[in-house]
Amino acid sequence: MDIQDLAGRVQSGERRALARAITLVESGRADHRAQAGALLDQLAPLGRQALRIGLSGTPGVGKSTFIEAFGMFLIGQGLKVAVLAVDPSSARSGGSILGDKTRMEQLSREKNAFIRPSPSQSQLGGVARRTREAVALCEAAGFDVVLIETVGVGQSETMVAEMSDLFLLLLAPAGGDELQGVKRGIMEIADLILVNKADGDLKQTAMRTCADYAGALRLLRKRAYDPAGFPKAMTVSAVTQDGLADAWAAIGELIDWRRANGYWDSRRAQQSRHWFEEDVRMGLLSVLNRKDTRARIETLGAQVAAGKLSASRAAEDILAHLRPTGEP
Amino acid sequence: MDIQDLAGRVQSGERRALARAITLVESGRADHRAQAGALLDQLAPLGRQALRIGLSGTPGVGKSTFIEAFGMFLIGQGLKVAVLAVDPSSARSGGSILGDKTRMEQLSREKNAFIRPSPSQSQLGGVARRTREAVALCEAAGFDVVLIETVGVGQSETMVAEMSDLFLLLLAPAGGDELQGVKRGIMEIADLILVNKADGDLKQTAMRTCADYAGALRLLRKRAYDPAGFPKAMTVSAVTQDGLADAWAAIGELIDWRRANGYWDSRRAQQSRHWFEEDVRMGLLSVLNRKDTRARIETLGAQVAAGKLSASRAAEDILAHLRPTGEP
Repeated sequence: MDIQDLAGRVQSGERRALARAITLVESGRADHRAQAGALLDQLAPLGRQALRIGLSGTPGVGKSTFIEAFGMFLIGQGLKVAVLAVDPSSARSGGSILGDKTRMEQLSREKNAFIRPSPSQSQLGGVARRTREAVALCEAAGFDVVLIETVGVGQSETMVAEMSDLFLLLLAPAGGDELQGVKRGIMEIADLILVNKADGDLKQTAMRTCADYAGALRLLRKRAYDPAGFPKAMTVSAVTQDGLADAWAAIGELIDWRRANGYWDSRRAQQSRHWFEEDVRMGLLSVLNRKDTRARIETLGAQVAAGKLSASRAAEDILAHLRPTGEP
Repeated sequence: MDIQDLAGRVQSGERRALARAITLVESGRADHRAQAGALLDQLAPLGRQALRIGLSGTPGVGKSTFIEAFGMFLIGQGLKVAVLAVDPSSARSGGSILGDKTRMEQLSREKNAFIRPSPSQSQLGGVARRTREAVALCEAAGFDVVLIETVGVGQSETMVAEMSDLFLLLLAPAGGDELQGVKRGIMEIADLILVNKADGDLKQTAMRTCADYAGALRLLRKRAYDPAGFPKAMTVSAVTQDGLADAWAAIGELIDWRRANGYWDSRRAQQSRHWFEEDVRMGLLSVLNRKDTRARIETLGAQVAAGKLSASRAAEDILAHLRPTGEP
């Protein structure tokens, strides 16, 4: 593969080249990994930055419809929009939450939009690295906004927040009781809560729900990197498009303030550091996925379970076996 | 240190020898680690098993008073009782939640009791290994019951449950709203919920709270390793000792059933396997605590944060630097 050529075509915004580049970073093959590294190194000096928006929402909240409507709104503002999906659970089903893009029919036909389904990977750590690299490729391809969509599974929201400039939480109109269902940890990483479906019969409920969440947000500890009034809860309707412009204005207000106060840069710096250390940890543990290591762990694990060998001694055996080779 | 001699004295139940042996397994020094390993290997063939009871409770629930009362009750049944505390947060304060044992004055004076404060360790993984080894030493010293007490910090409850035969959750009488405050994950690992302070003015509230928790427990998915009626919620009073005998009877019923149905052995086997794999992971990551590694991570991390080096490339540098030495 001609990496120089691919880099050039990604840089000029060719969507097919971008798709191919993402396939490359998603590959687990050693030669592909080397090529992906070279590609990213070539593109890094461009220094292009998109606004990275993490997005999560409970099932049935209308996330696809929202992304389609919000994506079309952004394109209407003259922006280029990429949508990346992260679904660690898709490894099991083998499928992808974005499937054949039929979820976002209108957006997927736009030349200024790029939609990429979740890769099927079993390890959250692997998904994290691949998604970060896909984000970097979208930035190099000149996209202005990268939406990183995740499902609320395990640690995926925290992971996506760790690679986003801001985090949107999309929620449905609900009774007061259901407010409890939103995990506190997720509330704490949200920069903007959008209560969707604020239209028709649900409008009043949506407004009450929004007020409830606004109250809940006020109870959280003030974060240094927020201007007054943030995190904020607002209502939107993906169907009528009501509230999308207001949400975008709020995002602009938040981001402008963070840029002006140094938090955009410091957050990105802190995130890079985090991923560096995470990559080191994943690299050290990757030896556990090696076939011979897995077999040895299986054999010794059976002896440990049978009480013939202590857990510590078995672990020492594995570690002693791994170290001399110097080839994790 | 004469390990053979120490092993003999631990085996004969000498509390001072046991304390010294635990200090040895808690040490991070390489020579102490080797001695601790030899000691544990010498004691393992005894095959002595205690009933390992994990215990957690919200602050203010009267945990120390309960452990003192329950411990005295067990001693009254002719049993030898060890109490180990696990508090990963104590690393920060430098202190120990058990402090100078003044928390359990009566119990600490009993010759059939052994109380050990939490070691001050910064890493949860390290705390886990040390606690497991301390449990094994208490078993070798002939204790019948080992209470492993933890505070509800981060993952410490899950960790303690992973090394216990059963898990007790101690809760205070409370209004219906406060029921929500108990994390679902903790409810799911509890085998027995004890609502403490069921005495005096609080008795009625305690009974209502107990009924509420019983209802909540019925909503959880049935676990294969539970007899009918478990997990169970009961009331106790550490002050009047009411309910302690009933709680002990329920524990006996649960454990007898699990033994008879193979779950005692299969759970211990599964736990050993778990700790074996965890030890391997910790061993692989331990290189990150090495001084030269930390310094290198610091240097490269600063470059990554400054945008001069990509996270992936920096990670590759660290990993390449670590591998050839073969000496993590």
